[in-house]
Amino acid sequence: MTERDLVLVGFGNVGRRFVRLIDELRDRLEQREHASFRVIGLATGRHGSMFDPRGIDGARACAVVEAGERLLPGAFSSTSGVACRDAFDVIARAAASSPGGRAALLETTTLNVEDGEPAASHLIAALDAGVHAITANKGPVACRYAEIAARAARARRTFRFEGAVMDGIPVFNLAREALRGVEVTGVRGVVNSTTQFILAEMERGVSFEAALAEMQRKGIAEADATLDVDGWDAAAKIAALANVLMDARITPADVDRTGITALTPGDLREAIDAGERLRLVGSARRVAGRITARVAPTRVPASELFAQLPGMANALTYETDLLDEITVIQGGGGLVQTAYALLSDLLSLPAPE
Amino acid sequence: MTERDLVLVGFGNVGRRFVRLIDELRDRLEQREHASFRVIGLATGRHGSMFDPRGIDGARACAVVEAGERLLPGAFSSTSGVACRDAFDVIARAAASSPGGRAALLETTTLNVEDGEPAASHLIAALDAGVHAITANKGPVACRYAEIAARAARARRTFRFEGAVMDGIPVFNLAREALRGVEVTGVRGVVNSTTQFILAEMERGVSFEAALAEMQRKGIAEADATLDVDGWDAAAKIAALANVLMDARITPADVDRTGITALTPGDLREAIDAGERLRLVGSARRVAGRITARVAPTRVPASELFAQLPGMANALTYETDLLDEITVIQGGGGLVQTAYALLSDLLSLPAPE
Repeated sequence: MTERDLVLVGFGNVGRRFVRLIDELRDRLEQREHASFRVIGLATGRHGSMFDPRGIDGARACAVVEAGERLLPGAFSSTSGVACRDAFDVIARAAASSPGGRAALLETTTLNVEDGEPAASHLIAALDAGVHAITANKGPVACRYAEIAARAARARRTFRFEGAVMDGIPVFNLAREALRGVEVTGVRGVVNSTTQFILAEMERGVSFEAALAEMQRKGIAEADATLDVDGWDAAAKIAALANVLMDARITPADVDRTGITALTPGDLREAIDAGERLRLVGSARRVAGRITARVAPTRVPASELFAQLPGMANALTYETDLLDEITVIQGGGGLVQTAYALLSDLLSLPAPE
Repeated sequence: MTERDLVLVGFGNVGRRFVRLIDELRDRLEQREHASFRVIGLATGRHGSMFDPRGIDGARACAVVEAGERLLPGAFSSTSGVACRDAFDVIARAAASSPGGRAALLETTTLNVEDGEPAASHLIAALDAGVHAITANKGPVACRYAEIAARAARARRTFRFEGAVMDGIPVFNLAREALRGVEVTGVRGVVNSTTQFILAEMERGVSFEAALAEMQRKGIAEADATLDVDGWDAAAKIAALANVLMDARITPADVDRTGITALTPGDLREAIDAGERLRLVGSARRVAGRITARVAPTRVPASELFAQLPGMANALTYETDLLDEITVIQGGGGLVQTAYALLSDLLSLPAPE
């Protein structure tokens, strides 16, 4: 049985769903994967941070945070836990109490497409202290992948980020574990659900503003949806894919990016009349040794897969030298899928020393 | 550097393409995968069998076989190689000369959907002798997976078969390496290229017989295409998927199977007029604890992915408990992809003892 001690930095929807998921799957994980997990550190933005090497009751921590209360001092004051200054303090304590690659950081702070902070610093602090580093945040992979991967190699620890693109669909694990020896020469995909939905609504004649407002009303798009509609989210995913799969050294700002805000229902109808569909397509390719990456509304023949994706489905095509093209389609995304991505990364870690 | 000694049993198109592929990729495999391969045994149907622990020149062996000549006695008579009685003799010699999990069998004899022989016996002989066993043949996985997997576990050796379904597209590796902790509750797919092509031709008004004849003229379908058009090939793939991913204990004969021979162009046009397409769909599902598996011409809404697959593309959808549905689409298949599947399996083997 592999026992892992976990530190969660960021304890929002994804972090809490993850804690509940490992509770729900406890028997399956022990019996089939011979793995058991214990949360020993929590760092939150507004509810305090704590460390308890005897283990923190995850369900109770979720309830405390959802009730708007503090962990410590507060609901956990009667436990053996201690209050911590910040995420770095929690990570340092976990590293000291769980050496030998037994501890793992699960980083789920919010996306920053400019420099990947503060997630990147959390991941680096963990790796430097001998703690495996897992994130569901595309920022650090899109902005600073090579640097963090080098830190991981130096510390002989593992950096994983399956949740950064297409939630739990194993787009990175597939390439790493199942396409060994194959050269990925390019990627292209429809990787942002909010814009998928808006474009489908606009095809029915709904205005951009009304479609976006509906997504926000349903809680799918953020109140500030500019990351989605300006193409930043897709650009960060394409940068992450290019950095990891194609050894690029780019950031989201290096992606030639056009969002969907200038599109009108007329543009979409015109594409349909021409036997095509407008989709926000991202791509990266190595051309003459240089990576070119792009996100833009693109006219796709109606018969092609990217035009046919149902609902808010995402799709990613790997262009390879030996296997022609492989396309992976995500049927459904959401919190549980992103939480699973963290778990999948945890299960891929090497055994503790 | 991991050095492997290889035994090829079956040296037809796939086996020869594999030998050339590892020659072509030698530098990449050494530098990136830290792996080097040497062929020490060859068992062919009509060109003799040989063993040479110093290594067999693969390119020369391909040329000899393609010229219709014998290996030994014959073209390799001046080498240190020895002629062998049969595949079992080659396997036994390789096992004795390369102990400790250093040797691997690559089994590529022809498909037998009834009992998976002789491939199954070759694989078992290898495992029992301490040799890892890899096949691109769906027969043994479809007919006798549980038994062979148990032999592998007992011998502490590895049984791999990525080429059995969708060539090099990693349909098994993906589930094993990247969906850990996820329950696959069902699979469904379009997994036979010959019938895909015939149905597309029939949609254009071509008769079944004429479409099949064209496939045979192009060398894509076998002279005896009954395995394809009667649904046996698809049934074997579905049985293999169910056995491996869903712990079923079925054989191709247990699959409720209907081929495409009874379809007329009129049937296909009728489906199109109803906004649908006829496709040969295979599926397996666990219903009330029992596996039900089926291959049959199925009407699929024209807007769904299975109806939209380009050319001879194949697609497989995993139905899962945690990740909703994941679909993998194969853009192109062929010899090099199947040969890569063998290589991919080789690269996934544990390091020698």
